[in-house]
Parts: sequence; C-alpha cells; structure tokens
Amino acid sequence: MPESLPVTITQQSTLLSAIQSPDDLKKLSIAELQNVADECRKEVIKLVSINGGHFASSLGVVELTVALHHVFSTPDDTIIWDVGHQAYVHKILTGRREKMQTNRQFGGLAGFPKRAESAHDAFGVGHASTSISAAAGISVAKELAGGNEKVIAVIGDGSMTGGMAFEAMNHLGDLKSDVLVILNDNQMAISPSTGGLRHHLINISLNKTYNKARKLIWKSLSLFNNELGDKAKNAVRKIEDGVKAALTPGAFFEALGLRYFGPIDGHNMEQLVKALKEMQELPHPKLLHVITTKGKGFKPAEEDQSKWHAHSGGFDTTTGKLLKAAESKGPQKYQEVFGEALVELALKDTRITAITAAMPSGTSLDLFQHALPNRFYDVGIAEPHAVTFAAGLATQGFKPVFAVYSTFLQRAYDQLIHDVALQNLHVVFAIDRAGLVGEDGPTHHGAFDLSWLHAVPGLVIMAPADEQELRDMLYTALYDLTGPVAIRYPRGNGKGMALQKNFTSLPIGKAKIVREGNGLALLCMGTMTGKALEVASILEKEGIDATVVNMRFLKPLDTKILEELASRSTHFAVIEENSTIGGLGSAVIDHLNTKGLHRPVLKIALPDAFVTHGNMNDLYKEIGFDTPSMAEKIRRFYKEGHM
Amino acid sequence: MPESLPVTITQQSTLLSAIQSPDDLKKLSIAELQNVADECRKEVIKLVSINGGHFASSLGVVELTVALHHVFSTPDDTIIWDVGHQAYVHKILTGRREKMQTNRQFGGLAGFPKRAESAHDAFGVGHASTSISAAAGISVAKELAGGNEKVIAVIGDGSMTGGMAFEAMNHLGDLKSDVLVILNDNQMAISPSTGGLRHHLINISLNKTYNKARKLIWKSLSLFNNELGDKAKNAVRKIEDGVKAALTPGAFFEALGLRYFGPIDGHNMEQLVKALKEMQELPHPKLLHVITTKGKGFKPAEEDQSKWHAHSGGFDTTTGKLLKAAESKGPQKYQEVFGEALVELALKDTRITAITAAMPSGTSLDLFQHALPNRFYDVGIAEPHAVTFAAGLATQGFKPVFAVYSTFLQRAYDQLIHDVALQNLHVVFAIDRAGLVGEDGPTHHGAFDLSWLHAVPGLVIMAPADEQELRDMLYTALYDLTGPVAIRYPRGNGKGMALQKNFTSLPIGKAKIVREGNGLALLCMGTMTGKALEVASILEKEGIDATVVNMRFLKPLDTKILEELASRSTHFAVIEENSTIGGLGSAVIDHLNTKGLHRPVLKIALPDAFVTHGNMNDLYKEIGFDTPSMAEKIRRFYKEGHM
Repeated sequence: MPESLPVTITQQSTLLSAIQSPDDLKKLSIAELQNVADECRKEVIKLVSINGGHFASSLGVVELTVALHHVFSTPDDTIIWDVGHQAYVHKILTGRREKMQTNRQFGGLAGFPKRAESAHDAFGVGHASTSISAAAGISVAKELAGGNEKVIAVIGDGSMTGGMAFEAMNHLGDLKSDVLVILNDNQMAISPSTGGLRHHLINISLNKTYNKARKLIWKSLSLFNNELGDKAKNAVRKIEDGVKAALTPGAFFEALGLRYFGPIDGHNMEQLVKALKEMQELPHPKLLHVITTKGKGFKPAEEDQSKWHAHSGGFDTTTGKLLKAAESKGPQKYQEVFGEALVELALKDTRITAITAAMPSGTSLDLFQHALPNRFYDVGIAEPHAVTFAAGLATQGFKPVFAVYSTFLQRAYDQLIHDVALQNLHVVFAIDRAGLVGEDGPTHHGAFDLSWLHAVPGLVIMAPADEQELRDMLYTALYDLTGPVAIRYPRGNGKGMALQKNFTSLPIGKAKIVREGNGLALLCMGTMTGKALEVASILEKEGIDATVVNMRFLKPLDTKILEELASRSTHFAVIEENSTIGGLGSAVIDHLNTKGLHRPVLKIALPDAFVTHGNMNDLYKEIGFDTPSMAEKIRRFYKEGHM
Repeated sequence: MPESLPVTITQQSTLLSAIQSPDDLKKLSIAELQNVADECRKEVIKLVSINGGHFASSLGVVELTVALHHVFSTPDDTIIWDVGHQAYVHKILTGRREKMQTNRQFGGLAGFPKRAESAHDAFGVGHASTSISAAAGISVAKELAGGNEKVIAVIGDGSMTGGMAFEAMNHLGDLKSDVLVILNDNQMAISPSTGGLRHHLINISLNKTYNKARKLIWKSLSLFNNELGDKAKNAVRKIEDGVKAALTPGAFFEALGLRYFGPIDGHNMEQLVKALKEMQELPHPKLLHVITTKGKGFKPAEEDQSKWHAHSGGFDTTTGKLLKAAESKGPQKYQEVFGEALVELALKDTRITAITAAMPSGTSLDLFQHALPNRFYDVGIAEPHAVTFAAGLATQGFKPVFAVYSTFLQRAYDQLIHDVALQNLHVVFAIDRAGLVGEDGPTHHGAFDLSWLHAVPGLVIMAPADEQELRDMLYTALYDLTGPVAIRYPRGNGKGMALQKNFTSLPIGKAKIVREGNGLALLCMGTMTGKALEVASILEKEGIDATVVNMRFLKPLDTKILEELASRSTHFAVIEENSTIGGLGSAVIDHLNTKGLHRPVLKIALPDAFVTHGNMNDLYKEIGFDTPSMAEKIRRFYKEGHM
C-alpha cells in the first residue's frame, strides 16, 4: 500500500465498480480485496477533498471494512459502527457509492449510518459508545428468535472510554451472547485518547512480541522482585505493567468476560481476513484488538490526525493544501471567543479549571490546555464523570467550567441535577453547539437543552446575543453567581464585532431592550436577537413597529420586563433555536398567564420533531426559520391573528 | 463477633458513648475498635427495628467504617460513601448519634450523607456510582491547593457496574491522583450483582490462596495447555480464568491504572486497620478490595439480603419477625400491578422482554424474572446501556419494557432521545417512583420526568389514574403503538380496586372526563385524578362545580377536550405531581394560547425547588399538595382571582 497517493485519481476503478453489494466481495482473493481497499481509500480522499466530511476515521478502517464485508454477510449479519464517522467505506460497499456525492447534504446521504437509509445500517449512530449495547440487544434478539447470524460492534479506543461501553461489556459477560467486539485502536478519539485504559492498550501492543515467551518473562519478573530493593522495585513496576499486559493480554476485557484476541495489524488484509474467519466460528462474547492508523494512506492526515478528523473540503488530494490560496476565514467563532475569554480569566484566577469530554479542539479548550495544562482536564468521552468530577472540584472552592456540546450534555443530565444542582455547587456549563449544527444532523443538533435545563431548580440559564455578551456571561457566571450556571451558544461564527478588553457583569435575570417599538414585542434567546432585528426591519416596511428584547436569561426569567411590555404590547412573539416545547416561549406564556396578562404569544422555535441534516440555510428554510419566513409568520400573526 | 445478637440491647454502651467525634477513635486498640463496632452494629439494628431505614448495607461496613475513622481524619481527609445506604455508622461516629432517631423523618437527618448536615459528609449521594468521580475532583482540588489530605471513595461491587465508575477510574489512571478506592465487595447491589466483572471479583477472592504460588500455577497451566487436546482445552478455560485472576489479581483495575490490593476480610478489624494504614502512605490511585457480608451480624439479613436491604421497621432485633402479628398490607402496589400485568401479557407474547437496571424487586420485575427468566435482563446499575440494549432488541421486532425509577432514567436521557426516539423504536419505559417518594428524599423523588420527556419528539407519554388504567396503558403501549412510549406511575399502594381480567386498549391522546361540572375545569395527570375528585367534593360545598378530567396523556395532548372545556369553563386548574415547569400545566397553557382561548390556568404542581425528605403526608403539607390546601388554592383562584 502506498504511503501517499498519486496526484491523479483514476476515475473508473475496475474492481470497485464491479462491487454492487457486499456479496460481490465474497469470491475475491486477498490481493483483490486489497485492491478494492486501495480504490476505496482513493475514493474517500477524493470525496472529502471535494465535499468535505469526516475523513481520517474512514481512512483508518478501509481494510477492516473490506475484510468485514468479505467474511460476514450483512444485512443478515449485523455490523454496528460506533459513532459512525468511520463508515464511509461501508456505505460505498453497500450500494451507496453513487450517492456518496450527496453525503451530509440536505436531502442526501447522512454522515452517519442510518436505518432508514439502508438495510446494511443495522443501527443508527452518532453519539459515542452505543455500539456494544445495541449489538448485545440485537444478538439477544437473534438468539431468542432462534437465529445464529453474527453481530459485530466496531468501536474505537476513544469510544471505549465511555461508561456505557463498559456497562455493555459487563452485561455481555453475563449474557454469554455471541457478539464480536472489534476494538479499532488508533489511540485517538477526535483528539488523542485519554485514560488509564489507553496505557493498557499501548502496553498490549508494545509487548505483543513477548507473547511467545510468557513463561520466561514471568519467571524473570519474579526473580527481579525478589532480588531488588524497595526503590528499584518501584522502577520495575512500570516494566511490570507492560509485562503483565503481555502475560495476560487484554486482561481488562477478559475480566469482563470477553475473550481477548490480538492485537493484529488493521492494515494487513491477510491477517484481518484470517482473524475474522476465526472469530466467526467462536461462540460467546469476544474482542478482537485491531491496531489502525487514523488517516492511513493520506500523509497530511497521518501526521495531524486531530486536524484531519473532519474537513470542509477543497484540498489537494496529495499534499492536503487548500486549493483556494487565501481561504476567507470569516469572523471568529463563538467557541474561540469562549476559549480565549476563559484563558484570560484563568490566567488571573487560579480557581478556574477547565474540563472537556474528549473535545479540546471542538470546544476551543485546547487554548486552555496549552496555556494552563495543570488546570485542564480531558476526561475522555465520559460526560457523566465530567460533571461529577466538576462537582467535586466545586466543593473545594474551585470554579470548574465544563465545555460540552448541548447534545452530549444530555448524557449527564442526572449528574447535573443530582450532583451539581441539588448541592447548589458552582459549576459552569459552557453549552456549545446549542441549536442546529447543520451537516451532522439530528444526532448532533442541540435542539432540546433549554427544555430540559429549565426544570432544574436553582440553575441559572443564559444565552449570549453576540461574542461580547458571551464574554460577559462567562464573567458573570464565574463572579456574580455561586450556584450552577449554564451558558448556551451556537456552533459557528460570531458577528465579527470588536471586543472590549474588560469584562462586564450582567445583572442576573435582566433582559435588554435592543429596539424600541410598540404593539408587538419580539422576545429572543441568544443569537436569535440578531435575527429578530432583521425581522423587525422587514416588519417595519409592513408598518409593524416591533420592540425587540434580548432576554439573556431563561432562568431567572425577567418577569418585570414581560409585565412592562404587556402594558404596551398587544402581541408577543418569541424566537428561540430550541424545541418549541418547554423553552422560552413556554416560560413567557406561563408567566403572562400567571399574571392574568392574556396576550397572544407566537412561538417561533424548532419543531417538535427531529430536524434532518444539511447546510444551515437549507435547514432554516425547511423549518421556516429563515428571516423572511419568520417575518411572514409574525405579520400574519399580528395582522391576521394566525398562530 | 457474634453471628446473631442477644435479645436485650444495652441502652448505655460505654465505649460508643465516649465517641463524640472520630478523633476519639484514634487512640483505641484493635480490640476496643471492635468493641465500638459491635456497639454500632447493635445500634443500627435497634434504630432500623424501630424507625426503619436502609439496613443490610450499613451492617456490612461496620468494621470498615470504624477502621476508616480510626486511620483517617475527616473532615480534613475525605470519605465519600457511594449511594450512601451504608453510611449509618459513619453518621453515628461523626456526632449524629442522638439525631439518628430522626433518620429519614421530616425535619430529621437525611437517609444519605448530605453536605449541609455535617462537615464529615464531603459529598451528597443517593444515586449509584458517583463516588469515584467526586473523589477525583476533590483530590485534584486538594493537590492544586497544595494540600495532601487523603480522599477515599467507598463503593460497592453493585455500584461498580455503573459506567461512570469506570469513567472515573479510567480518568484516575491518567491523573495519577492520590485517591483510595475501597471496593466494598458483598456481591450484592440491592439484589445480587450482575455482570462479567462480578465473576472476575469472585475469581479473585476464591483464588486468593493461590497468590503465594503464582509461578507454580502459571507453569502448570502452560503445561496443561500444551498437552491437552482441543476439547479439553475448552474445559480448562474456565479454570484458566480463575488462575489468571490469581496470577494478576485485580487485572481489571490495574489495566485502568489503579494499583490493586486485597482482597481482605472486611470484618477483621486488625486486617482492615493494617491495610488502611498501608494505603495511607501510598501515592497515586489505588484500590483496596474488601470482602464484606451484607447484613453481617443479623442472621435474617445475612440469609435474605435483598429483603433486608431496607426495612420499614417494627421487627424483633434477633429473629427479624414483625412485631405486629398480622401486619395490614394495604392495597396492592402499583409496581406489583405492573409486574403481574407484564407477566400475564408476556406469557402469551414471546416478543415481550423485560429489562431492569439492578432493581428486580423494587420494580416488581422479579415476577417476570421467575416466570420468564430467558426473556428477563438485569443489566446492572447501567441505565444508559439498558436503554440502548432495549433499542437493539426493538430493531429486531421484540417489545422491550424497561422498568426504571423516574430519577434513575435521568441517567439515560440521551440514549432515550438518540437511540430510541430518533429511530422511532418501540421501547416501553415503565417509569416507576414518578412524583415524590417520601423518606428517600430529593435524590430519589421523581419530580422532573414529565418536563424532560415532553420535548422528546414522537414519544407518547401517559400516566394512569389507577391500577386498572396502569394495566390498560401497558397493554396500549405494547399493542396500539409502534414507537417509544413512557408510562409514569407513583411509588406505593393503589386504590385496591377490583381488576378486570382482560386488557382494554385506550384511545391514544384521549382524555376522560371523570366528573361533569361547570365553570371550572380540573385537569389531572395520573393518580392526581383521585385527589382532584376529593378536591372537587370540598369545592362543591363552596358552590364550585368542577369538571374533573383524567388527561391520561401528556403527549399527544387531548387538545380537543381543552377546546371543548374552554367553551364552558372560565377557569382551568391543572394538578400534576411533577415540577411546575414544563409539565401538563405548561402544555395546557400553551395550547390555550395557541387557540386564542385565554382562560386563567392555575398550576398545582411540585415547586421549582428540591423537595426534602419525610413521610408523604408531611411533604404534601409542606408544599401545599394535600387536598385541603389544593381546594383552598383553587377556591381563592376561582373566587378571588389569586394565582
């Protein structure tokens, strides 16, 4: 296999073109399978270079995917791809080669396996660490139904740090169910993997050559320990860890009741096919440890795996250089503004600590990681632990900030309630990717956080209208509050506004009127304020003079301003990028009811449905969330009484 | 230590009386410490025999607790008790001996460690598997602050099955932080522990005598494997697992980066004190494996540990027999009605499967476990896995029913959204302990489920008004729906009504008027319907003629009945045992607003605050949720316009 690919990519690849379904892989020789793999790799590089998408993960499992589809027979057999970033080759080989051009586009293929898309996609994925649980359920079902089809979960070492993967393996050990777990070990999540288990896995792979000499090693080790003094023994301990891993490789998995096999080279087709065929015959749960290189076959990605985890496209397929010489970067992203502000504050305050669940680059906490490494914690894909770990820090007077995507914080809802809010601990939740996220689609949209956060007693919930307010809300959260605080902000670029050097405290529970008007009050959460001002401009032409209010806080709600607005408004409209159920709209309607101020309130929010994937403009149009649609809805509401 | 205790318990126990704080334990000899332990054990038995409470767990850790407080110095050092059922002795020894009489009572001590109660309670607990995360956070904080106080997490083997415990240990392996994890291994959660890890732990303890002969065993094993044929090798495998555990004891924990020590006898004071003193000096994360007997020293509890996990009190302190000869049992509990109905249906339908997360007896799924063991799954304390495991089963056409307490399902909120609802899979959530639960208090109240379930697209949400409706809703969920369904019902006794043999389908999204009236509409979720009828009787005497509606469904909401009621009601009141934010009340107000039907709606719900512990009557009075308070609120609302 070439270390890097030739500049020219053959348009017509003979072998791959003949693969209409995985069945066509069955009769191929090892050499031919490798040939198909090479073609798939070129195809993935080409696809992502044009349209963008998740990249390095798929390149790492090209051989594994081809080998799996050669040995097993989906959809009778089941392959579940954990997270699903790595499933591009799977899609190419299961009848979706042509459609891969539409990957992640509105109306096109999803970026992740999806049941509705293909019978070969046995289980929809997107969030990490679900595959073994789903595989266990499917395997049990097949056994109950009297079948003996095979069930395989392919899971990365990053996803293996998520607690539910452990829970599933522990359960498998009881079930004795016939599941094959393939540990795709590339020592990376999106960023390098973390945790004690990683060292165990490294020890296994480093020591694999020792496997044949177990007895000898064990004997030597025992002699060492008997003959050495206390200090030297300590030094030997490190070696001992590695040796133990060699003596009982995969002890971790064996302890849970999975038979461990490996490690094998995930880029060696012959080894892969041989091992998978052996696994096929073995009953009971087992784990095959496969060592892969993320980004394999594309040098720039092999060299900077985090950077090439996903790409927006438009690069040279050999050098990785961007085709547009000076790509316009656009205004600073909200996450960058957050990351920089937190570093600024933490440089002056040793109580501030930063926590991420395997997302240092996505959240921009990598800035903190570099500036203040001893107060930065990457806990792995482990949101529940992250929250309670933060709670522990807070009990000691520290100020932990957990930066996490809205959709992933759903995993730690109980810990947020039970460990943080119930104890009224000062933990700051920086909730990133709140609202729609575009191409990643429904698994990743942050569509519900306002709804499920709202009911949490004592939690302060804010959303900034712009970058400056994000900075000030972070400051307010850290210095003007002593209990739990959530700040939600969207994916993507800010306004590009000039930022003040200093931070300003915002009054708790106070909204801000950003446009004075009459008759109609437009109430907004966060960056919807900007949209509302655009909407107000459109409405102005229709003779509607809207008051626009940046509510800033969902909780505590600025009830005074609602009452004041009711005195001069016949109509209210609420704009929030959150489900229409249970967010700001509901809170406003509730309060007006309580005060007997019966004004009609139009809610403009995300629908009570899962929103599909695609670029943001397409999605906004689809759900009537573009400013012209909003303006038209409000016009009809205000002038014609339509709700 | 006696195997069972004498009938007469000494009122004045000299040594224990002298213990005003843990400092007083410091100078005691091993024999004296054991003496204190014996007295503590008697005291716990007596306390629970009178007032009830969690029982068997505390009896299992009497020696461990005394030894911990002898060796370590709280509150400078930190002891975190996972779940906290086992912390009664800790409370007795940390200045709360007198107050233990008020344990779990309204205004009295909490049944769990609680920060507000004592400086010795470093972290509030209640839900399982949080202790190592909290310990990691506290330890890191102490290190950052330059301290070297010790941090200890005491966690049972049951709690060790929860994924966040794994996440925390994996993180500790990275942190190298100075945390001592004490694995309190009694092979029980509330019911017997499950999972592959349990076998690993059993292997360790069974094989501990082998520890001294590692070399020999390993050598023999290797010889075996070389000399035996394939079939015999398979047979040897089982032995091998045990031997491996002896060769590398605690391999599971070692793999995560914790040094493993043990197992030791958790009822041997000398061993405990010696081991804890050794641990005290060791840097970095380590785990001490302590074998205990749940219920130790009280024979009935040792013999039936599940039954004696908790007790309502009123038993003989030697025999365990109930003091009242024929205890009045009261009507059948909701959980029993559920458990029996599910077995009835599953006997006729092989597609029905039942899942519990370590709560077979609490949920009454033990009925299913006994009747249909091959379709029953106890996954351990692992709610996230449970939900995705159910999703896997559902993809294969099975009908999984996950019975889970409301407060614990918070742990699987993401899996409910991402793995079940997004794929529109037919999983039935039987949500037990919805509403207040009484003495267990705020960690266990099911106060928020309607709020966080409501925003989940496509989820059907129901609540039965009585036992018959619970049966019918279960039937409806299994046979009239094809997507995700939640049925929430309370802890405790039903009405004692006669149950119909057959099941009846309920129309989806349709409410039921249970009392016709005029002017005032009382809308109810679930068992609040009975309360509303009582309230209506009180109101009748005031000349208020309420229409009472059993809404049955929160989602889909019966919007037609709301509109119909609006045509003949000037006032609405909504009663639901759920947070006032985001439940039925909000849904009703929202819909009336959308239709321009501006009627004042009074919400009678749980406050936007954490409700304390105590018996239900006291709690209801405290929050104005008793029927006279409700009636008075409604009277003032209806007659005087008060909200």
